[in-house]
Amino acid sequence: MAISREGVLLVLSAPSGAGKSTLIQRARAEGGFAYSVSCTTRLPRPGEKDGEAYWFLSEAAFDERVAAGDFLEHAVVHGHRYGTPLAFVRENLAAGHDLLLDVDVQGAEQIRACPDPAVRRALATVFLTTPTFAELERRLRARGADLEETIRRRLRNAEGEMARWRAYDYAILSGTPDEDERALRAILEAERRRVARIQTPAIWP
Amino acid sequence: MAISREGVLLVLSAPSGAGKSTLIQRARAEGGFAYSVSCTTRLPRPGEKDGEAYWFLSEAAFDERVAAGDFLEHAVVHGHRYGTPLAFVRENLAAGHDLLLDVDVQGAEQIRACPDPAVRRALATVFLTTPTFAELERRLRARGADLEETIRRRLRNAEGEMARWRAYDYAILSGTPDEDERALRAILEAERRRVARIQTPAIWP
Repeated sequence: MAISREGVLLVLSAPSGAGKSTLIQRARAEGGFAYSVSCTTRLPRPGEKDGEAYWFLSEAAFDERVAAGDFLEHAVVHGHRYGTPLAFVRENLAAGHDLLLDVDVQGAEQIRACPDPAVRRALATVFLTTPTFAELERRLRARGADLEETIRRRLRNAEGEMARWRAYDYAILSGTPDEDERALRAILEAERRRVARIQTPAIWP
Repeated sequence: MAISREGVLLVLSAPSGAGKSTLIQRARAEGGFAYSVSCTTRLPRPGEKDGEAYWFLSEAAFDERVAAGDFLEHAVVHGHRYGTPLAFVRENLAAGHDLLLDVDVQGAEQIRACPDPAVRRALATVFLTTPTFAELERRLRARGADLEETIRRRLRNAEGEMARWRAYDYAILSGTPDEDERALRAILEAERRRVARIQTPAIWP
């Protein structure tokens, strides 16, 4: 069913261990999203081309982009800076493409504070979490990837992140990967049908 | 995944011929909704029991209920009055049951005007329509149930109803019955995960 509408800007945050990476991978593999290419100050790894996984910028160039208001959100992760280009987001939304952004609670706050009307119309924020703290701990231990110290740090961070779940539009209580994906897909399908997002000429009379 | 939340009050309107009755039947058959029993002033048909399909009221009793503010919405259809009991709706929402109400554009306006905070939190309104006016006409003729005069009246009414689609939260452009049902189900699944509807004690910390 063809319908003239602006894209949905789906922003997903989650405490570490809740299953966000899996959900993002599955949702992108399933398709239907434009893929946002971030800017970063980290050096390209062998074989990485500019504009594919990332746009690679110097610290000075990144500073200039920040000062010019070119980023929808930007953050420091492990000493490297990452930013989501606002122009790319705006162009995709105007073309009716949906975007799925993986950001932490600070990134989501920056996006919520964005004054751009197109971004504000498009935005739907989703917080993914486990039903209980014990389940988050169980999952972090079950993946067997982290040292005890790292697990404890992730759990401490999770408490701070959880304190902000009420600022999101939607909360998904993580079940199986299939259940999580169905929930995210339902939110996207519902948001696509928001009247505020449908352009008038597409609907008669 | 158990989650403590209030129910969703899904209100569906559509111009005649857009496929609303089919969608309501399918959604209710699929399950997951509490069924709202309306009050009416029409006489019971043979075999109809009070409180099953309807609560049967005299005109005077109906008037009293209207005056007492007992109806979420009420309307006159073919000379008979119908009303949705507010107490029933409130009880179901508080128990976390979702409701699907089939109302016309006037009924939806009454519900939107309801000052009850529980109703306001629960409400999500959906307008179902065909992508074009020509498609609505085609469907009305294809079902072969109406006289030409009735079809023309339905089409005139549809224009007035369409003029109010922007007052709804969601618009479903009707495709196949399966597509319509998937769209409504996605809206329900998304609305179930609205943070505003989830009670705090259910989410840690």
